[in-house]
Amino acid sequence: MREVAVIGIGQTKVEEHWDKSLREIAGDAVLLALQECGMDSTESIYVGNMMSGSANHQQHLGSYIADWVGMRFSEAVHIESACSSGSAAFRAAVMAIASGSINSAIAVGVEKMTDSPGSEITSQLATAADADWEADMGLSFVAINALLMQRYLHEYGWDKDDFAGFSINAHANGAHNPYARFQSPINKSAYQKAPMIADPINLLDASPMGDGAAAAVLVPVEMIKRPGQKMIKIAASAAATDTIALQSRKDSTWLTAAEKSVIEAYSQASVKPTDIGVFELHDAFTIMAALSLEACGFAERGQGPRLAIENQICPKGRIPVATRGGLKARGHPVGATGMYQIIEVVQQLRGEAGETQVERPVYGMAQNIGGSGSNIITHILKAEHF
Amino acid sequence: MREVAVIGIGQTKVEEHWDKSLREIAGDAVLLALQECGMDSTESIYVGNMMSGSANHQQHLGSYIADWVGMRFSEAVHIESACSSGSAAFRAAVMAIASGSINSAIAVGVEKMTDSPGSEITSQLATAADADWEADMGLSFVAINALLMQRYLHEYGWDKDDFAGFSINAHANGAHNPYARFQSPINKSAYQKAPMIADPINLLDASPMGDGAAAAVLVPVEMIKRPGQKMIKIAASAAATDTIALQSRKDSTWLTAAEKSVIEAYSQASVKPTDIGVFELHDAFTIMAALSLEACGFAERGQGPRLAIENQICPKGRIPVATRGGLKARGHPVGATGMYQIIEVVQQLRGEAGETQVERPVYGMAQNIGGSGSNIITHILKAEHF
Repeated sequence: MREVAVIGIGQTKVEEHWDKSLREIAGDAVLLALQECGMDSTESIYVGNMMSGSANHQQHLGSYIADWVGMRFSEAVHIESACSSGSAAFRAAVMAIASGSINSAIAVGVEKMTDSPGSEITSQLATAADADWEADMGLSFVAINALLMQRYLHEYGWDKDDFAGFSINAHANGAHNPYARFQSPINKSAYQKAPMIADPINLLDASPMGDGAAAAVLVPVEMIKRPGQKMIKIAASAAATDTIALQSRKDSTWLTAAEKSVIEAYSQASVKPTDIGVFELHDAFTIMAALSLEACGFAERGQGPRLAIENQICPKGRIPVATRGGLKARGHPVGATGMYQIIEVVQQLRGEAGETQVERPVYGMAQNIGGSGSNIITHILKAEHF
Repeated sequence: MREVAVIGIGQTKVEEHWDKSLREIAGDAVLLALQECGMDSTESIYVGNMMSGSANHQQHLGSYIADWVGMRFSEAVHIESACSSGSAAFRAAVMAIASGSINSAIAVGVEKMTDSPGSEITSQLATAADADWEADMGLSFVAINALLMQRYLHEYGWDKDDFAGFSINAHANGAHNPYARFQSPINKSAYQKAPMIADPINLLDASPMGDGAAAAVLVPVEMIKRPGQKMIKIAASAAATDTIALQSRKDSTWLTAAEKSVIEAYSQASVKPTDIGVFELHDAFTIMAALSLEACGFAERGQGPRLAIENQICPKGRIPVATRGGLKARGHPVGATGMYQIIEVVQQLRGEAGETQVERPVYGMAQNIGGSGSNIITHILKAEHF
């Protein structure tokens, strides 16, 4: 199996891109990534996206994006696994290069959600859940996560306010990221006063939708010829599923798919949790941040919120998370999110994360969650020359 | 790069499955494929599908299908490239196994189109075209192909009736396939009297929509341990794109993406067109059958219809196509079609194709077309012990 590295990254700001189409947003990220490493094309393109078929009346995003960025004739395909579509596209690129079938690839995650009214997007987001047994019963995606959080509060005796730290840390970090949707810090009082969306999830527990794209150029390590070429190795890539409906799980407050994929990833990279210098986790809701930290071995079961309370998740803490704002403040353009996580880990490993730079990380981890924990993909990246 | 083989296949009949949901159809094909090779699960599932997000209000098909077939915790992902989604899923499975990342996979193509009214499906099919420059201008997918066929007739001086042979051959073969949507032969008179859909494409030039699923189990050749295990090797897997909008091509009557992917496939398998014993091509419209035969080197440019006129495409002909009915008679449940093509080639290479069995094929080829020729994926399979 050939080793694979990221040599170029690109992203757009997450916001409401009224003046740009889906292909323009994706194209901007792809061209920036190519430009950064001095390439003008790759053999294949893997496009992560969740809802363009309904939100933008456009499927077939592989050909659509390849054509737009001047790479017609390249191989191109669209990959979807709800909110983990971005990292699923990245993983497909990694495996294609590792197989020897191709020698260069772009993975790009893109989502343009603000073309449609919010009510339509809410119903499209619910297609990540079980149509028959969740969505058709009236559960929105926020409602599913609210049930989960309610159960967690009940089981472990936390107060809702104990989750404030996740949101405060994300917004504090996002304030230093020019690509973040929200760039203002918040305080605990703002969190406490935020309007309730689906009890106990309030506005500051939930990540905002938005339009955005993030891209990375991947090549086999053996083909990197330029001395001094920036290179971040993929040390591990692993994925696992769980039931699509939350109600089908015997244990709803434990992310089994996260545990399975992270155990496999730690094994591939020959590392343990304490080796991970930065962790871009999937804080679509604050409860998901807590559950990820637990499943990945950074907190005991039921103790995820303690890391936020003790502020161990800030850039100088024991396990920095959401260092560029996370889903909460950078924004959550669903199919793009996994690729934002990847390139943010790359920024950290390169030492290019500015005011929120973590000190000397060698390994960085990105974990992307599709559905209510039903499709979880974990990547560990490694800085080769820091 | 590890060699990969298909060891199990399964399919459902293509029809209007009013009594079955999307997951039941896909599950039936997956379980049949597993049963055939005596397995009960694989490490990963690759689901090819085009339009479930809009037609069935269900995305996230990886987790959705994995859960249903009892493979929760496996890796699972959904792959889309319009009508070539099925073979794109197969290619993803091939590369994942070839990379050494996983040791077993299922590729399944599934589409359930008859839940929605025909007018809605027509508009969803148009999401394979360019939303801004084709679909929004009022072009349906049939209309795009009609423009292409009109141009071809004009350039090469054929009469519309010269395409009848493609449809007649497909229906003659489909009559012997219990999984085909249409199992009655047609004659030239029926073709000539068929109602016009979009001039010059009539009802018998066009493939029917339908519900269906087809699946294959893949493993590395080196891990096949059982003596006598049925094994069909993947000798080549290649993909290429062209512009998404037909109008953007300098040369609209030539399938450049087919040519590029087939040249790469011939090279990988070290074969030439005369080595191909059976060719499951993408006859969504009769014009596409002609163009595929030309791009793959079976006919001179502009001479594709001659193979139909001379009946060189029947099971005993020089280059048998649509041997199980093709898209025309077996049916075209869009995201499933690529996988039907693959398993039909497997049937031929195993000698299990009944009355339409081709004599002693060693190599079989499947070519799946997404959009109006904008995403074309070619696989060559090889019978190891015939």
